[in-house]
Amino acid sequence: MTEREDGTFSGTGNRTDRDRQNAGEADASAFLRPGERLDDLQRRGYRIIQDPAGFCFGMDAVLLAGFAADEIRPEDRILDLGTGTGVIPILLEARTGAGELTGLEIQPECADMARRSAALNGLEDKISIVCGDIREAGGLFPAASFDVVTCNPPYMIGKHGIRNPAGPKAVARHEILCSFEDVASQTARLLCPGGSFFLVHRPFRLAEILVTLAKYKLEPKRMRLVYPYADREPNLVLLKAVRGGRPRLSVEKPLIIQERPGVYTEEIREKYGF
Amino acid sequence: MTEREDGTFSGTGNRTDRDRQNAGEADASAFLRPGERLDDLQRRGYRIIQDPAGFCFGMDAVLLAGFAADEIRPEDRILDLGTGTGVIPILLEARTGAGELTGLEIQPECADMARRSAALNGLEDKISIVCGDIREAGGLFPAASFDVVTCNPPYMIGKHGIRNPAGPKAVARHEILCSFEDVASQTARLLCPGGSFFLVHRPFRLAEILVTLAKYKLEPKRMRLVYPYADREPNLVLLKAVRGGRPRLSVEKPLIIQERPGVYTEEIREKYGF
Repeated sequence: MTEREDGTFSGTGNRTDRDRQNAGEADASAFLRPGERLDDLQRRGYRIIQDPAGFCFGMDAVLLAGFAADEIRPEDRILDLGTGTGVIPILLEARTGAGELTGLEIQPECADMARRSAALNGLEDKISIVCGDIREAGGLFPAASFDVVTCNPPYMIGKHGIRNPAGPKAVARHEILCSFEDVASQTARLLCPGGSFFLVHRPFRLAEILVTLAKYKLEPKRMRLVYPYADREPNLVLLKAVRGGRPRLSVEKPLIIQERPGVYTEEIREKYGF
Repeated sequence: MTEREDGTFSGTGNRTDRDRQNAGEADASAFLRPGERLDDLQRRGYRIIQDPAGFCFGMDAVLLAGFAADEIRPEDRILDLGTGTGVIPILLEARTGAGELTGLEIQPECADMARRSAALNGLEDKISIVCGDIREAGGLFPAASFDVVTCNPPYMIGKHGIRNPAGPKAVARHEILCSFEDVASQTARLLCPGGSFFLVHRPFRLAEILVTLAKYKLEPKRMRLVYPYADREPNLVLLKAVRGGRPRLSVEKPLIIQERPGVYTEEIREKYGF
């Protein structure tokens, strides 16, 4: 993948359309609507539909999928809260072979794109996209019906500096339609006992996040801080919490993104395909 | 300072006794009891009395003093909970010029050593050592009477594998005489509104620590993880919480101790004198 200037990613297109046609794959153009683009996920040839005018996934989603994938078994029932264009379920299927993935997304246009991306990759039987509200998730699915919940939630509190609070970028970045407490409370209802919750967030909210997880008996078990460079403040935190887990947090070695400007570290290149 | 095999430190003795006599300093032997040793703190020529059979301070105390010192003003009233041999008040005076430091220590032998170390360095007017119980600290001092509280508390829960639970090493390392909740609750009573609490602990207890701080309205404001090497899990966490502070945690760049075995990083050498 290649990082754009705005922090989102696009495929480098190492397979051509002719390669895909030769392999008997669906013609992507049938899945695309005007203004949308197709990006290569660098995993099993999977591609994803994104709307550059809307919210495009960033490195945080890719890191979260990698952080969670190590512990996911193919038989796990997985729910991604606020799935956007469905990048996390698609990456998790690619990495783990999981066959029961659900993405919940409140914005109909995003949910529709996610559904088309699943179909484009032949994953319509494995990935279900549900259009609905995280705050009502506990009523949309049976209690304790998932082994794993993932979430790349909006990071920002409030609506400061937002021009269009109803726009897809604002909804993805700011806590307009749901708070972290909504995410935690619904996750606690939907996870089976012992089930795992994987999330990514901003370090400046870490204290509040750990307190909220504890409130809903989601015990933090793994934490990894993501540093843009080895000598900088971290800008992301990856967390795993277990419903009803025993208290003991394993803080992992730093995840460093770049050795120097433009040069990814070996881990980022090898594990995440950048 | 030089790290011993057991993780504690001793002075490198860069000043000789003759240097000290020439400077008109007190003869250290008058302050020492049988079995005790004198270590150089590499700051203003200060020395500290330790008993190798008891608990000797480690790098954690030195890192905590450095982490706190950046924000301490000379006029601050400072309390160190569980001060042991008094290393933190002595280092804080050396780094900040603070003139009102109190160390609370439950073990009479340690409190006595701390008092003698203060006197040995001519700091008896600045550093008061009180022999008493952290659990009763809120009654030993007036409410809200400190600007800064520091604590290098016992890290371990329970008494597993302890031969002598009454011994000074066990009391310093295990939560035998006080829990983290005791430390937080007493700190909240003793700090003035807006006052700062600086502590060092083990990362595996981070979630519980942040939850407990929040319970007592001690808002986490700064956090720095200490990594023995750049590619290892952290083994210490430094935290600053503010009584009644606004929620927003600043997670700082990693503090890395060694570049490779036996070679400290530049920060550790320059800031901490190792």
